[in-house]
Amino acid sequence: MNDGPVRRHDGAFHWQGVDVLAYKQDGSAPFKDVTRQVLFDDAAMKAQLRYFEVAAGGHTTLERHEHVHNVMVIRGRGSCVIGDKVHEIGEKDLIAVPPMAWHQFRAAADAPLGFLCLVNQERDRPQLPDADVAAKAGGKP
Amino acid sequence: MNDGPVRRHDGAFHWQGVDVLAYKQDGSAPFKDVTRQVLFDDAAMKAQLRYFEVAAGGHTTLERHEHVHNVMVIRGRGSCVIGDKVHEIGEKDLIAVPPMAWHQFRAAADAPLGFLCLVNQERDRPQLPDADVAAKAGGKP
Repeated sequence: MNDGPVRRHDGAFHWQGVDVLAYKQDGSAPFKDVTRQVLFDDAAMKAQLRYFEVAAGGHTTLERHEHVHNVMVIRGRGSCVIGDKVHEIGEKDLIAVPPMAWHQFRAAADAPLGFLCLVNQERDRPQLPDADVAAKAGGKP
Repeated sequence: MNDGPVRRHDGAFHWQGVDVLAYKQDGSAPFKDVTRQVLFDDAAMKAQLRYFEVAAGGHTTLERHEHVHNVMVIRGRGSCVIGDKVHEIGEKDLIAVPPMAWHQFRAAADAPLGFLCLVNQERDRPQLPDADVAAKAGGKP
């Protein structure tokens, strides 16, 4: 049911009228078992809110860019690489990814990692690491 | 513990380094039992993410403004007035409040209502209703 300005959560991290999308185009960058849902992308807003879900054992692309991410975990647990550190993260933790920090989100081996990610509408494209940077980040290319 | 870019959730909808604030200055507008926490207010971002919590039986101010709200409920349940309709809302539902729509968030009588609210950094000030508008919205002034 479309209830006007309200879009309902279906109980399993899917929402009415929100498509489950590929995280990125296959082959464009390394990643494993990630989906993307755009929750708010309003012409009147200068930022978008997306929901990413990384399946158990999966990870996002290790990348960096000028734009910042404001993240809240809302499902499961895992870790995130930010710069040269790895942080354990769980439900409702807040993560701010600074400009040009290498970063990667990784689900636990036995649990998914689902998180909200706020970004400005206008933003630069990600850069990918060379082999040295990827190796320092812990070897998940 | 301050873990750099990660601010941890303490398990009760409070976060490391995030103050629990008054919703508004007392007497500036009608409301009942609401707190405000600013989760992300980053100079590099064009939007802010706040967490509001309305205690059981409480409600936010009935108001309108040009700027839009993008909302996700993350605790409890209740209802929201948007324009001339009242919508029941619960966990992880998404609500988009359009420009100049009268709106109010109300917790259930027996449960709190906690929600994330995304707004542009630059935004206009709320307008308050006259008695006719308030009465049409269901009599919670």
